Amino acid sequence: MNPLISLLQCLVLIISLFITISVSATRFNIPRLSPNAGAFVQGNYFARDHPKPLSAFDPVTEFQTIYYNQTLDHFNFRPDSFNTFQQRYLINFKHWGGSNISAPIFAYLGEEEAIDADLSIIGFLSENADKFQALQIFIEHRYYGQSVPFGSREEGFKNASTIGYFNSAQAMADYAEILIHVKKQLRAEHSPVIVIGASYGGMLASWFRLKYPHVALGALASSAPILYFEDIIPPEKGYYSIVTKDFQEASETCYQTIKKSWSEIDDIASKPEGLSFLSNKFRTCSPLTKSSELKDYLDTLYCEAAQYNSPPSYPVTVVCGGIDGVSSGNDTLSKIFAGVVAYYGNRSCYVNEPRNLSETDVGWSWQTCSDLVIPMGVSNESMFPPYQFDLQEYIDSCKALYGVPPRPHWATTYFGGHDIKLALYRFASNIIFSNGLRDPYSSGGVLENISDTVVAVLAKNGSHCLDVLLSDSTDPDWLVEQRKTEVKIIQGWLAEYYGELRAFEQ
Amino acid sequence: MNPLISLLQCLVLIISLFITISVSATRFNIPRLSPNAGAFVQGNYFARDHPKPLSAFDPVTEFQTIYYNQTLDHFNFRPDSFNTFQQRYLINFKHWGGSNISAPIFAYLGEEEAIDADLSIIGFLSENADKFQALQIFIEHRYYGQSVPFGSREEGFKNASTIGYFNSAQAMADYAEILIHVKKQLRAEHSPVIVIGASYGGMLASWFRLKYPHVALGALASSAPILYFEDIIPPEKGYYSIVTKDFQEASETCYQTIKKSWSEIDDIASKPEGLSFLSNKFRTCSPLTKSSELKDYLDTLYCEAAQYNSPPSYPVTVVCGGIDGVSSGNDTLSKIFAGVVAYYGNRSCYVNEPRNLSETDVGWSWQTCSDLVIPMGVSNESMFPPYQFDLQEYIDSCKALYGVPPRPHWATTYFGGHDIKLALYRFASNIIFSNGLRDPYSSGGVLENISDTVVAVLAKNGSHCLDVLLSDSTDPDWLVEQRKTEVKIIQGWLAEYYGELRAFEQ
Repeated sequence: MNPLISLLQCLVLIISLFITISVSATRFNIPRLSPNAGAFVQGNYFARDHPKPLSAFDPVTEFQTIYYNQTLDHFNFRPDSFNTFQQRYLINFKHWGGSNISAPIFAYLGEEEAIDADLSIIGFLSENADKFQALQIFIEHRYYGQSVPFGSREEGFKNASTIGYFNSAQAMADYAEILIHVKKQLRAEHSPVIVIGASYGGMLASWFRLKYPHVALGALASSAPILYFEDIIPPEKGYYSIVTKDFQEASETCYQTIKKSWSEIDDIASKPEGLSFLSNKFRTCSPLTKSSELKDYLDTLYCEAAQYNSPPSYPVTVVCGGIDGVSSGNDTLSKIFAGVVAYYGNRSCYVNEPRNLSETDVGWSWQTCSDLVIPMGVSNESMFPPYQFDLQEYIDSCKALYGVPPRPHWATTYFGGHDIKLALYRFASNIIFSNGLRDPYSSGGVLENISDTVVAVLAKNGSHCLDVLLSDSTDPDWLVEQRKTEVKIIQGWLAEYYGELRAFEQ
Repeated sequence: MNPLISLLQCLVLIISLFITISVSATRFNIPRLSPNAGAFVQGNYFARDHPKPLSAFDPVTEFQTIYYNQTLDHFNFRPDSFNTFQQRYLINFKHWGGSNISAPIFAYLGEEEAIDADLSIIGFLSENADKFQALQIFIEHRYYGQSVPFGSREEGFKNASTIGYFNSAQAMADYAEILIHVKKQLRAEHSPVIVIGASYGGMLASWFRLKYPHVALGALASSAPILYFEDIIPPEKGYYSIVTKDFQEASETCYQTIKKSWSEIDDIASKPEGLSFLSNKFRTCSPLTKSSELKDYLDTLYCEAAQYNSPPSYPVTVVCGGIDGVSSGNDTLSKIFAGVVAYYGNRSCYVNEPRNLSETDVGWSWQTCSDLVIPMGVSNESMFPPYQFDLQEYIDSCKALYGVPPRPHWATTYFGGHDIKLALYRFASNIIFSNGLRDPYSSGGVLENISDTVVAVLAKNGSHCLDVLLSDSTDPDWLVEQRKTEVKIIQGWLAEYYGELRAFEQ
């Protein structure tokens, strides 16, 4: 029997690993796969900067909240498997054309955060419901928000025996149960369901179409890096390579400054009083105890800026504006610090900011240590210090954290990924993989059409999940066009479906 | 916590339910979904009558037996989920063209019995391996044969906590793991896998192509009643309606005799000394204690004869030959008994034969009480006493047996089934649903083409799984043709695949 670690121990370990991680140790800071930049470790860019929605969308008044008595374990018949928990979903009938005309259902499949967050930032459903006469549903992912089994977060996350039911296969079965239930309740058996997901939720959406084609007619998978498993993506084409490219394209000097900053930080840190010097230089909230505290902070800042590098302000440009704005005579670290200030604005202190772990921190840490092992290597060509992903080390670290090991091969066993075109060219249909090519996670996305109906919709200048976020009057033309393309594709699926519905039901 | 029932209690309950079941109580005797007639409750027809194989196939010498360290629970990350068990598979390299030419792999997915049984009766792999230069693999289903978790059958079947991991979703994940492992070991990543299954194994094969298209290029699903769930098949078009049709087509008088026999049995049984009279009449091995013992025996005989109604002797014709052979002046029950004797041959006694439960009895009973709830109703039009399937009663009975309830909606949630043409017309590919229309389980099969590549291959006079059994010199032309058709379809899949392999890999 594996040792069971209490929530408290677990959090302490996570915190220590997140915050004090050294370059040589296992890197656990897999960037969040969320459409919501606010879910990032230090993330607040989105919250500060995101434009107000254009639409008169008001999630509080238009959506009904419903709790579904969900099965804890869909895949076994052990006595414990039959435990249930309350899973939250929200439903909006405002624009629905009804079951009489088998009007469609748009279902947003929640990712690693409370569904409230999605309700306030996702625009694709609310902005298109009218045009499609679509019912809107937002379903919360198990173990997030109000959908935590075992009665409380404390119990649900207590040890591997309770958190062990927390994985994507179970979450997808949850979604299937709820969607079938809703259709039955509404006598809308022939209403086609389009599932929409963003980031990790986009992975779930595309996988859902693959695993439950009888429940979902099609999927819009925004920024879904379904190929980021095992050895499919080599580090030199991975996440950090795109972050690097983003910065280099924004400014060659900025990129050069960042690239050489890491060794300067290490050099200074290794000297007597070096950490104290760095703490002063970066105005840290508490004195640095090792250089990795600073480096991880900067790493996260650059990743976050690149991942959510959205119009109108383009955070990468903002950071580089700060870095390049310091006159060339000055030292590298002054430039780097100027980049930090440009990004976060004036604060009393930076780095080692006192901060509570969010539920996304805790949940995502488990998910990347169980079924979603995303190997984040950094190649020599990047602007970051190189890092070779060591699978065994990763497994050992996860096991030390949770008492159970991850399953790094499970995602490709259950969902596939290798030779995806070969596997799906004559299989599947009706999936849009949308990606912004400036999004570092696009490196794990499907970037070319697999077939006529499993297609890639790309935005050269796009960032993470931009297409499904609320639209804005300042949106550039290419983003407006990208959304139109997606709507048109979905209209095509529906037209075909209704034709077949008429033909086959006769 | 549900009560845990020991193996002994469980078996006693199963026996009592199987043997003493009354017409008004829940019917648990769901006919086996096995290609092997020997697995039937009273089944011995196949063992007595099946022709010797034509081919020089010798499973013992040509196959290597390998044990794979299989994950107990693929879908959770609880400490117990990581337990493993030894899963048996057999592999035959004799005809394989090798990984250099990405020669294909034929994988037989075991159903509810030890894999040894399949090795001695399944012909499709051995008879076509040479032509396809195919590797042959037979994989045993978890909880059968030598692939029982928890170290022993006693432990594995002890209670719901140990038997609870026994279901088709877990079994399919087992198959995926083993096939991926074998391909990796052989460096045969691009060797296309064709999965072949018969009866319940055919369901697994077709579902496997749907759930794991990245592992299997195509599936031959022989006699797979994937639609026999929930309300998809009404009783008047179900299993018993085909049994009825088979007998009626064989002989109208035979059908009439059987149809009226049930009430005669009940009439006599209700009289003083009636059961004693029936016991003498049917030469029972022990005195009847209720009429249902006799009726269930006859029910099973007719079902078995119809399901395995194969050439050259056609058991339904044999039974009806017995029934019709008694001169018309004689009473109905003499005719019925003559049918019994014609089918089983001369024995010292019939009915209530002392008999040990087979592992298929025990395993299939669990499977039809967990994820495979197959509603077996009998309509008024059939030659059997009508029986209305009562879901709640069934659930209660399963719960009483095992301490946990079945999940009657899970199969359609996970695998679909309703409106299958609508769901799969533009999804999936490369599945052959083969059915013999005299097989009562064809009532739950896919009997028309869903698309160009998800196709039905039918044999009007065929019985259960005939196409994948060993061929014989006496096989009728239509059976020879059916097998040729299947081979040709699979050759087509492979030709397309190799074309795409060349095109996409460049």
